[in-house]
Amino acid sequence: MTHPEAAVLGVYETVLYARDVEATARFYAGPLGLRALEASEGLGAVFRLDDGGVLLIFDPERASEPGRYVPAHGARGAGHIAFSVGAGGLAAFAVRLQAAGIEVEREITWGQGGRSLYVRDPAGNSVELIEGEAWPA
Amino acid sequence: MTHPEAAVLGVYETVLYARDVEATARFYAGPLGLRALEASEGLGAVFRLDDGGVLLIFDPERASEPGRYVPAHGARGAGHIAFSVGAGGLAAFAVRLQAAGIEVEREITWGQGGRSLYVRDPAGNSVELIEGEAWPA
Repeated sequence: MTHPEAAVLGVYETVLYARDVEATARFYAGPLGLRALEASEGLGAVFRLDDGGVLLIFDPERASEPGRYVPAHGARGAGHIAFSVGAGGLAAFAVRLQAAGIEVEREITWGQGGRSLYVRDPAGNSVELIEGEAWPA
Repeated sequence: MTHPEAAVLGVYETVLYARDVEATARFYAGPLGLRALEASEGLGAVFRLDDGGVLLIFDPERASEPGRYVPAHGARGAGHIAFSVGAGGLAAFAVRLQAAGIEVEREITWGQGGRSLYVRDPAGNSVELIEGEAWPA
């Protein structure tokens, strides 16, 4: 008989916060090209990533209200997320971001060989796109 | 000739914030069983997930200091993350969490068939473990 393991497989939901959920969601659906799902709760935007993960954009005021069906949360200030892109994806995104008038805040080549570029979403969150690895295996 | 695509593959880094990084990191390395990497920057803790993703625990005071090598970020207040677990994983985690004296704040069965349990990390972030799906494909 096998014993079910208490093991985490990966991150299923990542959350970023934005007071203006709609404007921020347009950034992720537009220049970043993420696929939006219907958000049943009405308090945020939901995106499904190609690897099965989910990105949530929540209004921290509403997400932190007590008495919600799910446990309350909600952070203020700039958050951070990094998205992985495939080979050639970083160059392709650089072109698309420039066309959309989005300024690249920083570009970094990591010791692990990966390369990143950083932009800000409309809420001020630091958004990184990375091709390759920034951390050891 | 193929044209490189500006396409996001998935979330590479997810960040949670904690003033006491060490105490919070012990929660993720202990009861949650995540694998810690050496954090070269010294301002946070880094965990590698089995699917290749990375979880960062950062002190928001230090991560938001201007003049860092990477763009500044740092949020205050409770964040949220959901981790996927395999078949039987939720029951196994319930046993492990109880043994560690960690209270389950809420259990939910989703319309999509998935089941979740929620706990708090030492910094107050809402941590969800989910078996199956909470969102449409």
